[in-house]
Amino acid sequence: MSAFTSARPGESTPALSDAHRGPGGVLEIPQRFLMGPGPANADPRILAAQSLPLLGHMHPPFIKIMDEVQQGLRYLFQTDSKYTLCASGTGHAGMEMAIANLVEPGETIVVGNNGIWGTRVCDMAERFGANVVNLQTPAGTSFSLETLTAALKEHKPAVLFLCQGESSTGVHQSLAGVGDVCRETGTLLLVDTVCSLGGVPLYADEWKVDAIYSGSQKCLSAPPGAAPLMFGERAQAKLKARKTKVRSYYLDLNLVGNYWGWDAPQPRAYHHTGMTSMWYAMREALAIVSEEGLDAMWARHEAVHKQLWEGLGAMGLQPFVQNPADRLLTVNTIKVPEGVDWAAVCANAMAKFNVEIAGGLGPTAGQIWRVGLMGYNARPANVELVLAAFRDGLKQQGYIK
Amino acid sequence: MSAFTSARPGESTPALSDAHRGPGGVLEIPQRFLMGPGPANADPRILAAQSLPLLGHMHPPFIKIMDEVQQGLRYLFQTDSKYTLCASGTGHAGMEMAIANLVEPGETIVVGNNGIWGTRVCDMAERFGANVVNLQTPAGTSFSLETLTAALKEHKPAVLFLCQGESSTGVHQSLAGVGDVCRETGTLLLVDTVCSLGGVPLYADEWKVDAIYSGSQKCLSAPPGAAPLMFGERAQAKLKARKTKVRSYYLDLNLVGNYWGWDAPQPRAYHHTGMTSMWYAMREALAIVSEEGLDAMWARHEAVHKQLWEGLGAMGLQPFVQNPADRLLTVNTIKVPEGVDWAAVCANAMAKFNVEIAGGLGPTAGQIWRVGLMGYNARPANVELVLAAFRDGLKQQGYIK
Repeated sequence: MSAFTSARPGESTPALSDAHRGPGGVLEIPQRFLMGPGPANADPRILAAQSLPLLGHMHPPFIKIMDEVQQGLRYLFQTDSKYTLCASGTGHAGMEMAIANLVEPGETIVVGNNGIWGTRVCDMAERFGANVVNLQTPAGTSFSLETLTAALKEHKPAVLFLCQGESSTGVHQSLAGVGDVCRETGTLLLVDTVCSLGGVPLYADEWKVDAIYSGSQKCLSAPPGAAPLMFGERAQAKLKARKTKVRSYYLDLNLVGNYWGWDAPQPRAYHHTGMTSMWYAMREALAIVSEEGLDAMWARHEAVHKQLWEGLGAMGLQPFVQNPADRLLTVNTIKVPEGVDWAAVCANAMAKFNVEIAGGLGPTAGQIWRVGLMGYNARPANVELVLAAFRDGLKQQGYIK
Repeated sequence: MSAFTSARPGESTPALSDAHRGPGGVLEIPQRFLMGPGPANADPRILAAQSLPLLGHMHPPFIKIMDEVQQGLRYLFQTDSKYTLCASGTGHAGMEMAIANLVEPGETIVVGNNGIWGTRVCDMAERFGANVVNLQTPAGTSFSLETLTAALKEHKPAVLFLCQGESSTGVHQSLAGVGDVCRETGTLLLVDTVCSLGGVPLYADEWKVDAIYSGSQKCLSAPPGAAPLMFGERAQAKLKARKTKVRSYYLDLNLVGNYWGWDAPQPRAYHHTGMTSMWYAMREALAIVSEEGLDAMWARHEAVHKQLWEGLGAMGLQPFVQNPADRLLTVNTIKVPEGVDWAAVCANAMAKFNVEIAGGLGPTAGQIWRVGLMGYNARPANVELVLAAFRDGLKQQGYIK
């Protein structure tokens, strides 16, 4: 403390404690193949963008980057809505932003719950004072349009939540026809696309989806930390007609949206400091999407999914999801055969191949493996590596020769 | 769409719209000297850490990084508390996390409000159902211990909020004696250190501060996106004794804290996907703090503050904050002399020198300039550049020769 002389009157300035001084040295990170449900490996071009120098959060070149992110999201969501942005946080921040803004206390939300994400939405919506209808279907299955229609007609909820890709079970929820029924019952359709966006078809406008959130770290190949979000015209109208203030300041779309230019030509006001490096990463991720094209991206995810299952099938492994039409292409769930130690297979994959293969989560814990084929990792070589890790692990246990 | 064949039954898959396809090309960023109130320029070593490959959010090497972040925060806060972490968002997320967890609906919070941050805390606390006492003092002044003591004794609030560094006015709030009075009235002391942490002395334990939040993008020289947070034992006890659920799932410290190991030896559970690259950046930022040492950091910030004011004084410029003991070292506020166009000085600094000098905000809009000397930017060469920009701008307007 010798050199510092501006201590405030009355404030004690004892000797500094070095008890917790650290860490030291330059960070080093081991290379891993993240073939679980996410985060997936980031594209090196996107990681490189994160080492670019910072800009101020209201500087014109930074606003231009935000504009480009919004444009890229419109293409990715296949929407003409001007109301796109990224929440300043991970996918959960996007989920909470959607719920906090769409539902007012006392309103009803029907939650299509077939895994961990529906359960989370129920929890969040309760915290925000909603009347929650927890609509359940067994793990490994999706909701039929009949089931959803009946629930919508019975409850006439303000919001229906569906998860397009349920990563805990590997289930794909079809959205066919749901948007139409929601319009009949005065319901806003909110869809979680965290592990599906960019990997499987989504047409927000054509399918009449009112609100969507996603994550950055799955098929978009960016690090976790940004949650893409879209509000359609009906969702935006609901936001503007709210009778109560959104309970979260940080996630209030009346304020965050303004910062992203939603109120143009009204000027943008400072709300919070935008996440500079993370927006660089998202801009780059969306440029890559735009350059590849969605049709090529979807076909690439489909091709590696097929490649994976050919290899798994040859080992005698079976999908957890019975109905082929319910199977998610991006996060693949595989039944653990009787007598096989699933955790040993995962541990061997990491130790010997640097490959992450995940176990189950929530309703599927101990029953399945989960293999993600997303974004930068949705490539034939990665599939071969995963298959090699399975083969080796299953041989060790005498399940295959 | 020719290649993709896995469309779900009934889902339409029209031709893709290229109306919003974009952006394209590799991102390029102009170099700027961010000498406003923040974000400040990031240390290149920290930016480089952000381009390291990703790890899974529950992988042991990633947990080790989180542990190192917690350790580094203990040194930075000068606390033995095990309850440190980073909120997965910008400084505002830290603010909202602190308020959401510390205050239950119906409880009283006294907010020391002498600028924009107190006003924000009032807004947030109201959204979380608190009874808010908005204690105000004129812009450019701090609260005396007498004023705070009187408010504490009158309201016996659950929480007292103070902002150590009010960046909208350049005021430093002394914490001398405040912790002792708070213990008498059963009040938790919550301090905002977003633009002061690492730049000026703070001894969380010695000064009896119960909860602190900060930001990554000021004196810590990292990008915005992580909010360092500390809960002392009393704050943690309050959290565990809450009668109501925290209204935000994303920011619920009962859950987020567990993910950071606060409940050890209980195992960590998945709560949300940690912000991989951002935690790398924070780990590296804290390693740099530890290597330099807090005493050297504080002395460095003090030295450039003095250097700045010697130069500004020679031009006849005056500090906005009258009482020298109230002046913040890190964000300096400068009165705009009569007849001088403040915005023209800022515009010239950016156009000619690539230097950001900011105007006022909230209560000081149009009256002051703000110059940040924080972290990587708290260096003599940067001060000279700022002074050159002021000299040039003031000459153009005939204020100096």
